[in-house]
Amino acid sequence: MKKTVGIIGANGYTGSELIRLLAFHPHVTLSFLYSRSNSGTRISDLYPDLTTVCEMVLTDKPEDVDIIFLCLPHKESQNWLTQNPVKDETLVIDLGNDFRLEGNFGNRDFIYGLPEINKKQLMGAKSIANPGCFATAIQLALLPLAEKGMLNEVFTTGITGSTGAGQSLQATTHFTWRNDNVSAYKTLTHQHVDEILQQLIAFNNKEVTLNFVPWRGDFARGIFTSSTMKTDLELEEIEQLYQDFYAEEPFVTVSRKAVDLKQVVNTNRCVIQIEKSGNVVVIHSAIDNLLKGASGQAVQNMNLAMNWEENTGLNLKPIAF
Amino acid sequence: MKKTVGIIGANGYTGSELIRLLAFHPHVTLSFLYSRSNSGTRISDLYPDLTTVCEMVLTDKPEDVDIIFLCLPHKESQNWLTQNPVKDETLVIDLGNDFRLEGNFGNRDFIYGLPEINKKQLMGAKSIANPGCFATAIQLALLPLAEKGMLNEVFTTGITGSTGAGQSLQATTHFTWRNDNVSAYKTLTHQHVDEILQQLIAFNNKEVTLNFVPWRGDFARGIFTSSTMKTDLELEEIEQLYQDFYAEEPFVTVSRKAVDLKQVVNTNRCVIQIEKSGNVVVIHSAIDNLLKGASGQAVQNMNLAMNWEENTGLNLKPIAF
Amino acid sequence: MKKTVGIIGANGYTGSELIRLLAFHPHVTLSFLYSRSNSGTRISDLYPDLTTVCEMVLTDKPEDVDIIFLCLPHKESQNWLTQNPVKDETLVIDLGNDFRLEGNFGNRDFIYGLPEINKKQLMGAKSIANPGCFATAIQLALLPLAEKGMLNEVFTTGITGSTGAGQSLQATTHFTWRNDNVSAYKTLTHQHVDEILQQLIAFNNKEVTLNFVPWRGDFARGIFTSSTMKTDLELEEIEQLYQDFYAEEPFVTVSRKAVDLKQVVNTNRCVIQIEKSGNVVVIHSAIDNLLKGASGQAVQNMNLAMNWEENTGLNLKPIAF
Amino acid sequence: MKKTVGIIGANGYTGSELIRLLAFHPHVTLSFLYSRSNSGTRISDLYPDLTTVCEMVLTDKPEDVDIIFLCLPHKESQNWLTQNPVKDETLVIDLGNDFRLEGNFGNRDFIYGLPEINKKQLMGAKSIANPGCFATAIQLALLPLAEKGMLNEVFTTGITGSTGAGQSLQATTHFTWRNDNVSAYKTLTHQHVDEILQQLIAFNNKEVTLNFVPWRGDFARGIFTSSTMKTDLELEEIEQLYQDFYAEEPFVTVSRKAVDLKQVVNTNRCVIQIEKSGNVVVIHSAIDNLLKGASGQAVQNMNLAMNWEENTGLNLKPIAF
Repeated sequence: MKKTVGIIGANGYTGSELIRLLAFHPHVTLSFLYSRSNSGTRISDLYPDLTTVCEMVLTDKPEDVDIIFLCLPHKESQNWLTQNPVKDETLVIDLGNDFRLEGNFGNRDFIYGLPEINKKQLMGAKSIANPGCFATAIQLALLPLAEKGMLNEVFTTGITGSTGAGQSLQATTHFTWRNDNVSAYKTLTHQHVDEILQQLIAFNNKEVTLNFVPWRGDFARGIFTSSTMKTDLELEEIEQLYQDFYAEEPFVTVSRKAVDLKQVVNTNRCVIQIEKSGNVVVIHSAIDNLLKGASGQAVQNMNLAMNWEENTGLNLKPIAF
Repeated sequence: MKKTVGIIGANGYTGSELIRLLAFHPHVTLSFLYSRSNSGTRISDLYPDLTTVCEMVLTDKPEDVDIIFLCLPHKESQNWLTQNPVKDETLVIDLGNDFRLEGNFGNRDFIYGLPEINKKQLMGAKSIANPGCFATAIQLALLPLAEKGMLNEVFTTGITGSTGAGQSLQATTHFTWRNDNVSAYKTLTHQHVDEILQQLIAFNNKEVTLNFVPWRGDFARGIFTSSTMKTDLELEEIEQLYQDFYAEEPFVTVSRKAVDLKQVVNTNRCVIQIEKSGNVVVIHSAIDNLLKGASGQAVQNMNLAMNWEENTGLNLKPIAF
Repeated sequence: MKKTVGIIGANGYTGSELIRLLAFHPHVTLSFLYSRSNSGTRISDLYPDLTTVCEMVLTDKPEDVDIIFLCLPHKESQNWLTQNPVKDETLVIDLGNDFRLEGNFGNRDFIYGLPEINKKQLMGAKSIANPGCFATAIQLALLPLAEKGMLNEVFTTGITGSTGAGQSLQATTHFTWRNDNVSAYKTLTHQHVDEILQQLIAFNNKEVTLNFVPWRGDFARGIFTSSTMKTDLELEEIEQLYQDFYAEEPFVTVSRKAVDLKQVVNTNRCVIQIEKSGNVVVIHSAIDNLLKGASGQAVQNMNLAMNWEENTGLNLKPIAF
Repeated sequence: MKKTVGIIGANGYTGSELIRLLAFHPHVTLSFLYSRSNSGTRISDLYPDLTTVCEMVLTDKPEDVDIIFLCLPHKESQNWLTQNPVKDETLVIDLGNDFRLEGNFGNRDFIYGLPEINKKQLMGAKSIANPGCFATAIQLALLPLAEKGMLNEVFTTGITGSTGAGQSLQATTHFTWRNDNVSAYKTLTHQHVDEILQQLIAFNNKEVTLNFVPWRGDFARGIFTSSTMKTDLELEEIEQLYQDFYAEEPFVTVSRKAVDLKQVVNTNRCVIQIEKSGNVVVIHSAIDNLLKGASGQAVQNMNLAMNWEENTGLNLKPIAF
C-alpha cells in the first residue's frame, strides 16, 4: 500500500518541485498540500505546468500522514511542528535550516540528510534535516579530502540560479536586472558556511577554513562551485580518493572530463571534476539547486528512511540542452 | 520480455533525447546506437549528462531489433533503409521528413504519427512517420477547427529554440549572436507548411491557407505559436470544440489561463489557449520541440504501435523554472 | 548657451535612459530630475551605471527650464501639467500616451512625435507627444504602404523585451519565470493599436485593419515585429517605395539582408526588411524599445524642435554582441 | 586635421568594436580596414549594425596612416609588422599579446597600455601593448594593494562572456550548450596570469601568487571577478588606498555599493567593490571585456598617446538594462 504524504509550504518552489517528483513516485500518494497564504487555491493555478499532473487544492488543515515534508522559510519549521504536533512514527523531512546545526527538537533527533555521509543513519530515520543547496554542492566537492584529514584552507566561489532566491519578487530577481548580469552577495558570510564546516570538521578531525564567495548567475536552475586549496597530494591520488569515496553513490559522478552546469540540471545528480597545477588543487562541482540541492535530495532521503531503492522516482530526464 | 531498440543517428539531438527517454522506459532495452560519423565513441563522451545513464559505444553495425528509430538528416532515412534492409515485423519510426508527405516505401506504408489524429491507425502499425516540430505545434492548434471545416486563411507566427537547428555550429546558433536576439527565417516558405496543410485540408475538406512566419528565439528548447484567423464562431463554441477534440488525449491541454513556453519544456505535453476579439480568433500553442515535437512523440507512437499505455516512459518532470 | 532641461519621472526606465543620453548631449544641461516617490535620493544610487556620469539628487520641486520631458505613467502627464503650470515657451515632450490620440490641452497642441511622418511640424514645435514603442516599430514597418493607400488587413506579431514592462516587480518580469520563456499578452487588444491606426488611416485614406498579437520575450531590450498582408505589388516595387520613403531619414534603414534585433539594440535606429511569397508580403522591423521606442526618439524630437541636427547626441555605439 | 587610422584584423570582434568607437571619434578618420580573409567584403555585410555607420570595404592593402591598431590572433602581430613595415612615427597599438611581456621589437619599445599604471609613459608613446581582458579586470582590482606591497597570495575567480572567445564557432560558444550554463576552463593556467603577475610584482616589490579560476558565463559581454586574500589592513584603510589610487582616473570607480556586471556593459568603465570579514578581504571588479578589456582601452591609449583628452570618444551610453 502506498504511503501518504503531506507537504507543508507546498506553494513555494521546493514544495512545488516535490509535487513534480512525488506525483510519479510509485510508493507514495499525496494526501494534502498545506499552505496558509494560498489555502483554497488549486496548485495548478499557481504552477500551470502541474495541470493534469496534480489538481489538488491547497489547504490549511494538515492531516495524519506517513510522511511530512516541511518546505517553509527558515525558522518556521520549529514553529509549525510546535503548533501542529506530529505523531512519533511519522517521517518528518525538513527542507529548511532549523535542524541542520542542532538536530534535537522535542522527542525528535534530526539526522543531517546528506546521504553520501549519513546513509546508514538515514535508513529507518524518522527525522531528517535536508541540507542547504550550496552546502550540498560544496560538501560533495570536499568530503573525500575531509575524510582523510587533508582539508586546510579552502577558497570557494559558487554561482547560483535565480530559483535559489525563492519565488518572492526582488530587485535582484527582476528579469531586467538579472539577465546577462553577475553579482556577488553575502561575501564570506553566507549562512551555509557554518553548516558546511560543522560536517567537514567532523570528518577532517582538524580545523578547516572556508572562504566562500557566492555569486548570482543569470540562469534559473543550478549551482556551480570551484574550490581551491593547497595540497601535497598528487592529482591521481586525489582522484582515487574521490572515486573510492563515491563508488557506491548513485547520484555522484567524479569526472575526468570537463563538467558543466547543464549536465545536471533537472536531475538529482552531482558531477565533480578535479584539476591540479603545482601544489594547488581545484575541485569543481555542479548540482541542480532545487533537486540534489533541495527537493530531489529530500526524496532520496525519504527513500532511504523508508528502505526503498535510493533512486526510486529520481530517474529524471536531464534537460541536457 | 523487453523489446529491443536501435537508434540510427544516435549522436544527434533527437537521437540522444531518445536515449534519455528510453533509458528509463520499462518495456524496452537499447540494443545498439548507430552513428557513422561517431562510430567507436562512447555516447556519454558526446553527451556527458548520460554518464552512468547510458555508457554504450556508438557503432556503425546495425543489429536485428524489434524497434528502430531513424534520427537522420532529412532525405537520409530512405537511403539508410535501402542500404540496411529491415525485417517487415520490425517497427520503424522515422523522425525525419522522408515519409510524411508520401508514406509508401517498398513494402512499408508509413502512418503519419500525430496520435491526436491517427491514433487507431498507429496502434499496431509497423511504419510511422513522426511529424515535424512546428508541424506538431501548429496542427494541434488548428485541428479542432479543421475537423469542423471551419479553417480558412490562417496567419501564424512561431518561435523556436536553438535545438531546432540541430547540433551543427552555425552563425545563427552562435551564442554571441543569438543571445538576446530575435530574427525571422524561411518567411512563408518553411518546409513544414506542406506537411501541415496536407493534414489540415484532409480534415477541413476545403482549402486552407497558412501564412507562416517562423522566428528564431533566444532559448534552447521549445516552440510557441500564435495563429490568427477570422471566424463567426463564438469563443465559447470554439473552446468547446477544442475541449471535446482533446478530451481523451493525455498530452494536450486546452487552457483558459495564459499559457507560456516553460509550462511544457522537458515534457511531452502541448498546451493550447484560445482568445477572441471581434470576429478574430487567436490560438496559442506551446510544445517542447525535442519532445512532443520529436523524440517524445516518437516514444508515444512506439507505445501506441506496441499497444502499451500511451504515456509509458513519458511522465516527465517539467523544468517548470 | 546650453538649454536647460528637466525630467519629470526621472526615476523610471525611460527617465533614466534620457539621463544617459542627455548627460553627453552638447546643447543641453540637466537642471533638475523630478520624482515624487524618490525625492532626496541620488539618481546614481538607483542606477549605479550613472555613477560619475550624473550624480544629481532627485527632487519634487520643478524649476523653470527650456525643455521638459514627461516620463510618467500613462494618464499622469495631464495631471502633472495641470498641477505644475509650464510657460508657453517651454518645450514639453510627453513620453506617455496622454496626448497621442488627442493633442489639444489648454494652450498647447501636441504634435505626434514620429519624425518620419511629422518632421516639418516638429521643427520649432513646443508640444510633442512621443509615440509608443510598439507603435513606432509597427508604423515604421507600414507607413510607406500607407502613404500609397496600399494597406488593407494586416496581421502583426511583435515581441518585446522586459524593459517594456517598466521597473515594477511583476510575476511576468520575475527572472525565474521569464528566462527562456515566451508568452502572449493583450492579444488583439494592445493599447497601441488605436494610436497606430489613427496615423496609418490618415495616410492610407481608407480603412486599415490591424490584428496585433504582442508577445513577451526573454531579453531586456528591443522589439521585433513581423507584419503580414496580401498585396498585388511586386517585391521590387515595395522595396522601392520603402527606400524612397526613408531616403532622407537618418535612423531608418531598409535592408535587403536579414535583420535581427541586436542590430539596433542601444541605438536610435530602426531596421526594416521586406519579404514576399505569392501575393503575401511580410515586413519585419526592429527597434530598441527604450531608444527609438521612447527616450531616443524623444531626444530626436527635441533636436528637431530646437532646430539642432536631428542626430545630435544620438550617435550611439550599438551593443552589437 | 583629423589623424588617419588603419585597423588590421578589422573583421574580428575587437576590430569591429574599434570601428564602432572610431566612427564617431572627433579627431580621427578611418583610412582602411585590413583583413586578409575577408578582403573585398563590405564591413557592414559582416556586421549589419554598422550599416550607414561604416560602409567601408575590407582590403588586404595597408596604407600609410598616423595610427595603426593590430587586432590579430595572438602571435600574428609580430608577423604582420615584419611583413608590413610601418614608419617610426606611426602610432602602433597592439591588442594581441605579442608585446605585453616583452616590449622590444625592432626599433620599437612597446609600453604596457594600462593607463592606470603607465599614464605618463603612454603620453606621446609610439608603441603600445594593450592589456588582456581578464588581465585588466584583475590588475585594476589588485593594483592599489600592490603599490603598497600588500599583496601576498590571491585566489581569484572570474567569469567572462562569450565574446571573449572570439567569433569562431566552437562547441563552447554554441547557443544550445552555453545558454543557462557555467563551466570552468584553463583552471590555474590562463595565459593572462603571467601578464598580471609581471605588473603586480613590479609594483608589489615582493612575490605575489595568483590562483586564478576562469569560468565561462552565459552572457555575451563582460567580465566579473572576485579576488580573495588575507590581510591585516582594516576595510577603511583598504578603501582609502583604492580611492586615492584611482582618484584621478576617469574610468575606474571604487564603489561602497554592490557592483554588478551590467553597470559597465557597453562602457569603458571598471567598477570595484571591496568587502572584508575577519582577516580576509574580497575585491570585486567588473568591466566590458570588449571595451575596457580591449577596444575601448585601445582608444583610451590612443587618446593618451596623441595627447587628446583621455575620454574622447569614450562617453558611451551604458546598456544599463
